[in-house]
Amino acid sequence: MTAPNTYLKCTIAYEGSRYFGWQKTGSGPSIQESLEKALFQITGHTTKVEAASRTDRGVHARGQVVHFSSLYSERLHKQLNGVLPYDIRVMKIEKVPAEFHATLSAKSKEYHYLLCLGAAQSPIHRRYAWHFPYSLSLNDMRYAAQSLIGTHDFSAFANERDEQPMASCSRIELIPLEEGQRLQIQLQANRFLYKMARNLVGTLAYIGCGKLPLDVIPTLLATKDRKQAGITAPAHGLYLSKVFYD
Amino acid sequence: MTAPNTYLKCTIAYEGSRYFGWQKTGSGPSIQESLEKALFQITGHTTKVEAASRTDRGVHARGQVVHFSSLYSERLHKQLNGVLPYDIRVMKIEKVPAEFHATLSAKSKEYHYLLCLGAAQSPIHRRYAWHFPYSLSLNDMRYAAQSLIGTHDFSAFANERDEQPMASCSRIELIPLEEGQRLQIQLQANRFLYKMARNLVGTLAYIGCGKLPLDVIPTLLATKDRKQAGITAPAHGLYLSKVFYD
Repeated sequence: MTAPNTYLKCTIAYEGSRYFGWQKTGSGPSIQESLEKALFQITGHTTKVEAASRTDRGVHARGQVVHFSSLYSERLHKQLNGVLPYDIRVMKIEKVPAEFHATLSAKSKEYHYLLCLGAAQSPIHRRYAWHFPYSLSLNDMRYAAQSLIGTHDFSAFANERDEQPMASCSRIELIPLEEGQRLQIQLQANRFLYKMARNLVGTLAYIGCGKLPLDVIPTLLATKDRKQAGITAPAHGLYLSKVFYD
Repeated sequence: MTAPNTYLKCTIAYEGSRYFGWQKTGSGPSIQESLEKALFQITGHTTKVEAASRTDRGVHARGQVVHFSSLYSERLHKQLNGVLPYDIRVMKIEKVPAEFHATLSAKSKEYHYLLCLGAAQSPIHRRYAWHFPYSLSLNDMRYAAQSLIGTHDFSAFANERDEQPMASCSRIELIPLEEGQRLQIQLQANRFLYKMARNLVGTLAYIGCGKLPLDVIPTLLATKDRKQAGITAPAHGLYLSKVFYD
């Protein structure tokens, strides 16, 4: 008789730059594959790992949450960080009841998006922020963001048609950093449609620099037409920051 | 007759990871050499560039200041960023009087040092912060830092004997970031002896984790003995943040 598996919730951080996203694709390295390989290397068993969010190619994470069941020992945390690639780290491991599901139990998710403003971008941020060298009116962006709060059909901000286009956005906050040289946009919602976070950021940036009117959001939401909204902000400025559970 | 040169003050940012420091050494790439090469490429003239601080190998900069005299046009800023390597950027160019000297005119300098706390380090910071996985008492560190403020002989914190070991430290601030997962230490002084910023950080970290007593600073300053103080914190957590002029 072998020892029974333990249900585990694992909080991980990664630099997404060289990955094809969370999910195994067959076409390039993925976070999921790296984690499953690490678990196989340690336990000798094939383990399926599921995540709260299937982050896209190039997107980073500070607080991605995954679940799996595995042989458990106190050393597992250190062992995993010992065999994982340098750009993926397990930040925390907790035991959870068998009912816990990283995706289905999640109540809401928080993403952060980082923009570098000004004519030149500090080289330290070139892999971690969108260089946006146009002046932005934070007031206009904050005004526009108010219309996104609440429960809406977010089809206008989804790069794929979704059978369930409704989502509840509870918070959008604009936080200037380093004397306004950088701007962090924090977004929290119960769910995000495909590329929704990056489309919201791209649209807010277009409003901030005057390329779209500041009262355009209600119209965009009503049209449900992706083509009317702003561009998809690049992946390398986006971070999955936190997943909330009961 | 050729156009006269213009005296220029240039604020630059760089990721120091792959450089042997600011200064040309002959043994590896330097920021100074990269800048002088870029200026030669644009103007066709050999230009000598001098910096406020000769940052060490691996140290980053957000606000290094350099001066030089060169043929000037409005396009110089963009031209420089067009030919400089991806990890060096000119953030600002200003015309200055001929008397301006990046090193000699500087009144004080501000360095930031970043530590990642906790058992595992978020991979995004692995090149930009010192992973220090021991618990730190910020209260003890703040108490100890008070004894560093003022004008002292800082020989105990210099990795080379300095003919002029006196310096005036005006500010040391400890700023917890991201719910205490990271700690930024801001240091400002009129001058820094060789590796002084990193030795102050290493010593404060030793005090914070209890490896040195919290009242050790006055004794260290009095002994003037580098061997009594804490370790030299690694270069990749240090940023030259700002240089102050009149």
